[in-house]
Amino acid sequence: MLTPPRLADIVAALAANVDADTAGALPAEIIGDDALTISRLAPLESAGPQALAFLAQARYASQLTTTQAGAVIVGAALREQAVVWQQAAPGRALLLVADPYRYFARLTRWWAGRVRRAPAIGVHPSAVVGEGVRIAPDASIAAGVVIGAGVSIAAGVVIGAHSVIGDDAVIGERTRLAARVGFGDGCRIGARGFIQGGAVIGGDGFGFAPARQGDGMVWEKIEQLGAVTIGDDVEIGANTCVDRGALDDTRIDDGVKLDNLIQVAHNVHIGAHSAMAGCVGIAGSARIGRHCTVGGGAIILGHLELVDHVHVTAATVITRSVLKPGQYSGLFPFDDNASWEKNAATLRQLHTLRERLRALERAARA
Amino acid sequence: MLTPPRLADIVAALAANVDADTAGALPAEIIGDDALTISRLAPLESAGPQALAFLAQARYASQLTTTQAGAVIVGAALREQAVVWQQAAPGRALLLVADPYRYFARLTRWWAGRVRRAPAIGVHPSAVVGEGVRIAPDASIAAGVVIGAGVSIAAGVVIGAHSVIGDDAVIGERTRLAARVGFGDGCRIGARGFIQGGAVIGGDGFGFAPARQGDGMVWEKIEQLGAVTIGDDVEIGANTCVDRGALDDTRIDDGVKLDNLIQVAHNVHIGAHSAMAGCVGIAGSARIGRHCTVGGGAIILGHLELVDHVHVTAATVITRSVLKPGQYSGLFPFDDNASWEKNAATLRQLHTLRERLRALERAARA
Amino acid sequence: MLTPPRLADIVAALAANVDADTAGALPAEIIGDDALTISRLAPLESAGPQALAFLAQARYASQLTTTQAGAVIVGAALREQAVVWQQAAPGRALLLVADPYRYFARLTRWWAGRVRRAPAIGVHPSAVVGEGVRIAPDASIAAGVVIGAGVSIAAGVVIGAHSVIGDDAVIGERTRLAARVGFGDGCRIGARGFIQGGAVIGGDGFGFAPARQGDGMVWEKIEQLGAVTIGDDVEIGANTCVDRGALDDTRIDDGVKLDNLIQVAHNVHIGAHSAMAGCVGIAGSARIGRHCTVGGGAIILGHLELVDHVHVTAATVITRSVLKPGQYSGLFPFDDNASWEKNAATLRQLHTLRERLRALERAARA
Repeated sequence: MLTPPRLADIVAALAANVDADTAGALPAEIIGDDALTISRLAPLESAGPQALAFLAQARYASQLTTTQAGAVIVGAALREQAVVWQQAAPGRALLLVADPYRYFARLTRWWAGRVRRAPAIGVHPSAVVGEGVRIAPDASIAAGVVIGAGVSIAAGVVIGAHSVIGDDAVIGERTRLAARVGFGDGCRIGARGFIQGGAVIGGDGFGFAPARQGDGMVWEKIEQLGAVTIGDDVEIGANTCVDRGALDDTRIDDGVKLDNLIQVAHNVHIGAHSAMAGCVGIAGSARIGRHCTVGGGAIILGHLELVDHVHVTAATVITRSVLKPGQYSGLFPFDDNASWEKNAATLRQLHTLRERLRALERAARA
Repeated sequence: MLTPPRLADIVAALAANVDADTAGALPAEIIGDDALTISRLAPLESAGPQALAFLAQARYASQLTTTQAGAVIVGAALREQAVVWQQAAPGRALLLVADPYRYFARLTRWWAGRVRRAPAIGVHPSAVVGEGVRIAPDASIAAGVVIGAGVSIAAGVVIGAHSVIGDDAVIGERTRLAARVGFGDGCRIGARGFIQGGAVIGGDGFGFAPARQGDGMVWEKIEQLGAVTIGDDVEIGANTCVDRGALDDTRIDDGVKLDNLIQVAHNVHIGAHSAMAGCVGIAGSARIGRHCTVGGGAIILGHLELVDHVHVTAATVITRSVLKPGQYSGLFPFDDNASWEKNAATLRQLHTLRERLRALERAARA
Repeated sequence: MLTPPRLADIVAALAANVDADTAGALPAEIIGDDALTISRLAPLESAGPQALAFLAQARYASQLTTTQAGAVIVGAALREQAVVWQQAAPGRALLLVADPYRYFARLTRWWAGRVRRAPAIGVHPSAVVGEGVRIAPDASIAAGVVIGAGVSIAAGVVIGAHSVIGDDAVIGERTRLAARVGFGDGCRIGARGFIQGGAVIGGDGFGFAPARQGDGMVWEKIEQLGAVTIGDDVEIGANTCVDRGALDDTRIDDGVKLDNLIQVAHNVHIGAHSAMAGCVGIAGSARIGRHCTVGGGAIILGHLELVDHVHVTAATVITRSVLKPGQYSGLFPFDDNASWEKNAATLRQLHTLRERLRALERAARA
């Protein structure tokens, strides 16, 4: 078993590890016993005396009165309340930080490095590697991985078991693929990415030319000749699909985060730092701006543009371009079934109701 | 080829096989020729003279007048109509049972055991097994399976080809994984479970701390340190995703049934015996009660609670907690496109219409 | 590197390759320099002087004024405008064709055959092949493929890495499976099909018999004894799931095109040449006619019938049978969040509003 670290060790380790872009999350001031040993990270509500928890936002401050946590990471703005909590039981400790959420994020990354088995460096003997492949010596290629011809795999890359990398693909530094990822011919991903299990990058876009036959249309395959180009620091969720472009590439820019079971059709362009929750569908050739967010289950129709800073509520269907930043919504409010049935039935006559209302208004004016 | 069983053999085999929890489905009384040979199980509408069909509910009783089935399983309540049917063609036979649906379910399980090739016991030579793994001698580990270090696989377990089991995972007795399942580090499933192909259990939850950068937010990875804990008798559908918890485990309790392409986010808790149809999305930290059902394509937003016995209609979006059992709905009623367009356009002015109605009411009262 | 073909070579190659069903797309008349070398196919907006682009529809004709393409495929109806474009820069060339979209589709197929590495004929040594399997000598079975007993694989079939083919499955001539496809026991697909990565064909249908236990229902497994039968010329998208039938087969007829992440439940029947966009869900036993289209994210509930030539708008939920051809829609129109909130709140009182309107009407008539 691993030796649990002392609180002071944790703070020192995180401080030693700072890089420019996360400096805002540091440093931490310790109040209380910095020799307290920490055996796990835990949510406030289930934390015990050897657990380190965090209070993400000031509005949850009341949780301090009930938590059994041994130590808590708290924002500097809550210093007063937090110190009262700490003094009530001096065995406890506080970490006061500028941004507890980011400090906690950094802490989970350090903790994961401590507790997880490191992937084995090198190429597992059961992997199948094509001709002309370049693999950095410190990359980790797990059992059963299949790598096509001409692939380039950079330093520190980790490829999980049974992932299949197509011909001429490029995987950037320190990017990780979980087990069972499909990464298609000619697709590229930058540095520090993470693709979760079962994701399919570079499947064929859904492209067919319609042709009349008998009483209807039939569909002639358009081979999809583009690929997928993914920037740096991109995360793609489990079983999410990103199709290759028809002619040019489908593009996912730096810092984009996609949750599970998302469909990204061919020729889509997702701007930097946009994030999408599970089950979203983006139809072909849609252009999503930078810093957008899309809630779970939302649908963006094809050939639309969403400018930067557009936020789409869960389960909303975007049917035309959105050229102004803001929050957009469109979902039927749920209700008990009987109420919904009555309102839904009336909704099917809504246009008629408006006509009747107009008639009354005309009569009233007469 | 297998010898088709006689009806009497089937009834005897199922009676020999009863355990406590399904006793209610037995016994069957045979009316007619119990030596009839049965070559297949079939729906009433496509069944022929060597097929055994079943009549699930009394309201489908009229199908008896048209079926060509050689034998039918019927509920005792329909005895009279069924006997008339049987006597009209004495070569036919009837099985009268207390609960035909459950009797039929049991029959399919017995039939599957007859007709399917049994999985090969033992570990296929192409499987890759890590250090410190315990595998029961009667488990079946198919070609290309990759098993991480410290995994425990109980008696009677079947793991399909190319499934990948992460470090320290635990698979309970007689649980089956189909081909190509991903089962992540530290995840656990109880007895008699079934995970369909392509499911990803234990992918990373979608957790990021927002940090301001330039004109918008960027996302810092929160490593997901929890796992997934699954109870007994759970079925999980093809390409369904259940993410690992951020700190504590995501939990799926006994008897839960999840269909295909469902997204279960991190820290969700699904209570015992709840069932969800395909394409459902459950956002992070939602708590679903026991004996709930969720229709296809429904979305449950995060950090909500659904109490026991809540039933969500297909394609409904649950946006706040539901603290009272019952059926809940919220979907736009479909219509021909022209009618829908008119009503949808009016819907965007609905609030204004209410104001105009109020104005008329005030005028009428004046 | 490949030598870029001249325009005349391309036209000759496509003309040499015509078969009956696509004859309508030919022939092409070349206007301008037929010795122009073509290094890529490109969209009009990003095409350069060595690129061949196409103008799909007359309404995009204005793009001719801005494109930098070296050559463009144009419909005969636009001859006049196109010739003006060509004459403005005589280095350019035009291909005049009857149906530019179909000609372009054919061109992409020829181009793909030129630029892609051909799959290696034969069975990769890492593949695992069961007993009694027939594989055509010119089929291509990639690394890590697992093929069950009794499988039949026809001429020209290509199976991608790590695909798993169940016992007794049948794969028709020239059908391709991408990497990581699951194709279950006893399932069949015809000729010239294409199944994208991660698709699961023949997972268990979601079938359970309810049984009362304590304060609610529990679910008893119904083994799914049917399979999946797929016709000729069918394409199935990445991570799409088609469940096996409960007793009879789930059926997908000739020419059907399914995009990614679609759920097709057990016993569904999809008629010939119907096409469905990503994230669609089709519940059990639904029957979809021929030449139907279903937009992305739409849901079709179970045990319904859609006749031929029914077109379902994206994100629409079909809750009852549709017996008349046409376009059907039902989605909440999105709006800025504040407007949506007001309208959604009013929607929950819509039935009451109708009552109030009626009261006013009665009063007005009095």
